[in-house]
Amino acid sequence: MSPKITTELLKQLRQVMKNPKYVQEPVQAYIVPSGDAHQSEYIAPCDCRRAFISGFDGSAGTAIVTEQHAAMWTDGRYFLQAAHQMDNNWTLMKMGLKDTPTQEDWLVSVLPEGSKVGVDPFIIPADQWKRMSKALRSAGHDLVPVKENLIDTIWTDCPQRPCKPLITLDLSYTGVSWRDKIVALRSKMAERKVMWFVVTALDEVAWLFNLRGSDVEYNPVFFAYAVIGMNTIRLFIDGDRMMDPPVREHLQLDSTLEPEFKIQVMPYGSILSELQAVGAGLSPKEKVWLSDKASYALTEAIPKAYRYLTPYTPICIAKAVKNAAETEGMRRAHIKDAVALCELFNWLEKEVPKGTVTEIIAADKAEEFRSQQKDFVELSFATISSTGPNGAIIHYKPVPETNRTLSVNEIYLLDSGAQYKDGTTDVTRTMHFGTPSAYEKECFTYVLKGHIAVSAAIFPNGTKGHLLDSFARSALWDCGLDYLHGTGHGVGSFLNVHEGPCGISYKTFADEPLEAGMIVSDEPGYYEDGSFGIRIENVVLVIPAETKYNFKNRGSLTFEPLTLVPIQTKMIDVNLLTEKECNWVNEYHRKCREVVGAELERQGRHEALGWLLRETEPLARAQ
Amino acid sequence: MSPKITTELLKQLRQVMKNPKYVQEPVQAYIVPSGDAHQSEYIAPCDCRRAFISGFDGSAGTAIVTEQHAAMWTDGRYFLQAAHQMDNNWTLMKMGLKDTPTQEDWLVSVLPEGSKVGVDPFIIPADQWKRMSKALRSAGHDLVPVKENLIDTIWTDCPQRPCKPLITLDLSYTGVSWRDKIVALRSKMAERKVMWFVVTALDEVAWLFNLRGSDVEYNPVFFAYAVIGMNTIRLFIDGDRMMDPPVREHLQLDSTLEPEFKIQVMPYGSILSELQAVGAGLSPKEKVWLSDKASYALTEAIPKAYRYLTPYTPICIAKAVKNAAETEGMRRAHIKDAVALCELFNWLEKEVPKGTVTEIIAADKAEEFRSQQKDFVELSFATISSTGPNGAIIHYKPVPETNRTLSVNEIYLLDSGAQYKDGTTDVTRTMHFGTPSAYEKECFTYVLKGHIAVSAAIFPNGTKGHLLDSFARSALWDCGLDYLHGTGHGVGSFLNVHEGPCGISYKTFADEPLEAGMIVSDEPGYYEDGSFGIRIENVVLVIPAETKYNFKNRGSLTFEPLTLVPIQTKMIDVNLLTEKECNWVNEYHRKCREVVGAELERQGRHEALGWLLRETEPLARAQ
Repeated sequence: MSPKITTELLKQLRQVMKNPKYVQEPVQAYIVPSGDAHQSEYIAPCDCRRAFISGFDGSAGTAIVTEQHAAMWTDGRYFLQAAHQMDNNWTLMKMGLKDTPTQEDWLVSVLPEGSKVGVDPFIIPADQWKRMSKALRSAGHDLVPVKENLIDTIWTDCPQRPCKPLITLDLSYTGVSWRDKIVALRSKMAERKVMWFVVTALDEVAWLFNLRGSDVEYNPVFFAYAVIGMNTIRLFIDGDRMMDPPVREHLQLDSTLEPEFKIQVMPYGSILSELQAVGAGLSPKEKVWLSDKASYALTEAIPKAYRYLTPYTPICIAKAVKNAAETEGMRRAHIKDAVALCELFNWLEKEVPKGTVTEIIAADKAEEFRSQQKDFVELSFATISSTGPNGAIIHYKPVPETNRTLSVNEIYLLDSGAQYKDGTTDVTRTMHFGTPSAYEKECFTYVLKGHIAVSAAIFPNGTKGHLLDSFARSALWDCGLDYLHGTGHGVGSFLNVHEGPCGISYKTFADEPLEAGMIVSDEPGYYEDGSFGIRIENVVLVIPAETKYNFKNRGSLTFEPLTLVPIQTKMIDVNLLTEKECNWVNEYHRKCREVVGAELERQGRHEALGWLLRETEPLARAQ
Repeated sequence: MSPKITTELLKQLRQVMKNPKYVQEPVQAYIVPSGDAHQSEYIAPCDCRRAFISGFDGSAGTAIVTEQHAAMWTDGRYFLQAAHQMDNNWTLMKMGLKDTPTQEDWLVSVLPEGSKVGVDPFIIPADQWKRMSKALRSAGHDLVPVKENLIDTIWTDCPQRPCKPLITLDLSYTGVSWRDKIVALRSKMAERKVMWFVVTALDEVAWLFNLRGSDVEYNPVFFAYAVIGMNTIRLFIDGDRMMDPPVREHLQLDSTLEPEFKIQVMPYGSILSELQAVGAGLSPKEKVWLSDKASYALTEAIPKAYRYLTPYTPICIAKAVKNAAETEGMRRAHIKDAVALCELFNWLEKEVPKGTVTEIIAADKAEEFRSQQKDFVELSFATISSTGPNGAIIHYKPVPETNRTLSVNEIYLLDSGAQYKDGTTDVTRTMHFGTPSAYEKECFTYVLKGHIAVSAAIFPNGTKGHLLDSFARSALWDCGLDYLHGTGHGVGSFLNVHEGPCGISYKTFADEPLEAGMIVSDEPGYYEDGSFGIRIENVVLVIPAETKYNFKNRGSLTFEPLTLVPIQTKMIDVNLLTEKECNWVNEYHRKCREVVGAELERQGRHEALGWLLRETEPLARAQ
């Protein structure tokens, strides 16, 4: 990996920072955040502005360019990558280290008095704007919105914004029609006494209208906004996709229906002016509901007194609780996904000893097996296929420069998943194709104990996921070990593989309480730099638990694994498991045999079935 | 309990709310918070203004009186008590229930347009002022500071502010001189580039100067403020206590010493004007450090641009980490406390079957035994002595109306503690003096499992206490049980029995990471309304843990119990314990025998020693 040469680009950027064509007054600094106008985690190529200007293409990072300096803030996952990808024009700001200044503090330290700091108001979330603006103002500077994105003005070969065809999802997939979703949303709006709701997150637009797209890799979403009034529905979307007959029929665009369900289709780019018109026409006490992560531009369109901001929108919360149709879809998707992985692992078991399988080949083979399954759409994220020391790089993705050959002497970690029309999968298995060392087995077993502790946990209704995080670490902590990432994230239903508002993490963020129907991942790990990585991940469904007593009639919850892929017993030191843990593994493998075995049989995949049966032999604990 | 008749008082208060002698403009509402000017948890009688105006004397509650209404906000612990103590003039606002309005929302709903809401700026913390002021302003009202406390103007027989003699603590108790504490504080101030630090919490003043008082029951503190500059020390304190020779010598008031250690003693009431003078004399970049919980009055004395506010002050954080002298003192205090409790429980075992011991008699007897121990000062909180159904009232304190006789048929819960000159104790034991039922034993054993899970937990350096809370609940959760309070709080060293900045609670507050030397309580419980209460509480010291591995060289921590009082084995269902848990109990009891046994022997308390030996027989688990 050689760094991107950015001298000329930075020169151009610094010119436009003073060019009256783009800025009212020259800006002494320009901020280039990671995200897009929808605060998406995964972004389209046309939105990779920070990567364009700096060369650094990790998933998280903020660039700031002043007349003299160019600096990049990123976190521990990306220190090495950013250092490799950026040239000497750039200073790497390692977030999380004690001596690293915040963006605000750094700006204050380098800017001349009374400076203007520019940022694209469509890209910066309102809450970030507020924080940064306050800090700059108290030091005598100003954060100013620059309407035209300055990177776009110098990005001559910037790719076009994708505008791909849409998929319509019928009731058998979604369980609830878009009309009923609108009705439910309006009732939430009425509860909070708001007249308008602005849908800015791409997965929320997709979920609300039971539509899917492919504008962004791995996330089945499409570029759009929506503004829902008590009697109006406005959908802001570009291209001729609204001309597609199935889409027109799905949205009933040509039907005569009650005016409150009539969808007005408007150009994607008209959201700001339309929202400004809404803002200008509000009567006192008419509030507009937005996520507090919505862009500064859209938030500002509504006068402050009329804004109703919440960290999670009612759509985000409703979307997290899967209904029966979605749950059944997720189950089906996970069975198909397990079939693909049984095929893959059976194939790897035969091929790895030959020394011809690289990380990339293994990842491609996984995709090939998945693509043979019904309703497969695409992968749900870039496959992490890593062996030996590469496994210790938590967000590793094999590229030709790092591609390593799988062997019978190293641990192999595969974290992968797919989008099927009926559900989204995300599974990690850690395997050894030779004989693992006692130490590797010991570490694997601690991780497994943590995985089971979460998966089998029983907890009261209303418990927030972060209260379960330590269960996953306890066995590792007892031996002085740990892992530096959260334990789980919400998973969408044929939607984003990472979604809010619930999760399992030691980081106390505003997670919403877990409730039956929510779906999260359970993925503790252990990573030894330079040696190996271990992670065991299932996607699990929150379900009611039967308990002996029922304190205050609150009811209890637990998890049901949706992922049904064998956990390699060769890696387990059975003597470190309690009887209860051993029974959990055996019961899990019994279910894998029963459910996935039947599907392998049905698909006539007899060799993979043989592998499944071998890999799910019950463990026996020494008495 | 008959309610306080408040008709006349409310009439008087509503008159002064319009009286130009006290208010510049009439206020349409007046807020009466719980606290004192130092945001203390325990307050002096002269500060019980909310109890005076309403009759409700629970530890938490806020009264608001308007021209038409009088309303009281309190939490679930006090719904019953508040309902009993208040007359019909008052509306009880049950916090935590869904339909209960916030104080701001309620004010907005009842006030006429453009109202003024008054509050004593010395009583309301700055962060609360900010929140409330913003909410009122956005609805067209104003929060205004009313300098003279309006309750005080109508409280004709208000008790005087206490002004009791001080105790000086020498190095053998404190480990660090007040001069060295000032030096350390100034170095923290230099790090943050602040020129002044304002000490507002009473326990912080006491800790800083190695002084103790008795102005507030249970808390060995005294009314004072301090303002520490880089070269000056100002102590704001009333009465002739500074004339006491030992105090003068301790503070070196009559010595010629370096000017930066010369303490200027000033009247308690002059803090505001002195701080305003500091505020007026600041040069640019000279900041003043305050807790964000300091009163609005003192915070406002410093112009906004010069304030440096943090949730926890450097004193709060330094105070939490006990040094060797303090730790040794705490150990000694806990041994003496255990001696007193062995005497008590031995006595109860003999007396309870006679049917003559009430909750109050038992509490008094506990105090009597404690007062026989060296360096005993007072109790550290009101003893919770509760039997049968009273045990289920978490913050119960026996009074004649509720006083119940202990019997061999009911569970007895005793949560009590004392202030010794060398340390503060807080211990809960739950006993049965007859034969507990299988269900009572089952519940007790789950609570014990939770207690052990926290006490024996090993966790990385830097872990925050709230990450351990679920360990205490896991065994209860498995059976559908739980308890509705946190698991632990910080404990002072001959200081407040509740102190920040660490704790163990599911409530995610900004707790500071645990570090070796911190002291917290470990007190899970289970409460069955109308039947019984169970709680097992030890005070535990955070200590380094030896582990097999050491991930990232972070080091690990665990707890050492300071409390050494037997846990009644009669209440334990041994079959529900794991081997590890059983060993923990046996090792704990072995230590009680060894350490407390030796002290009982030394004090010639042979009968209590006999009780200790009987109660610490090792448990045997069926194989």
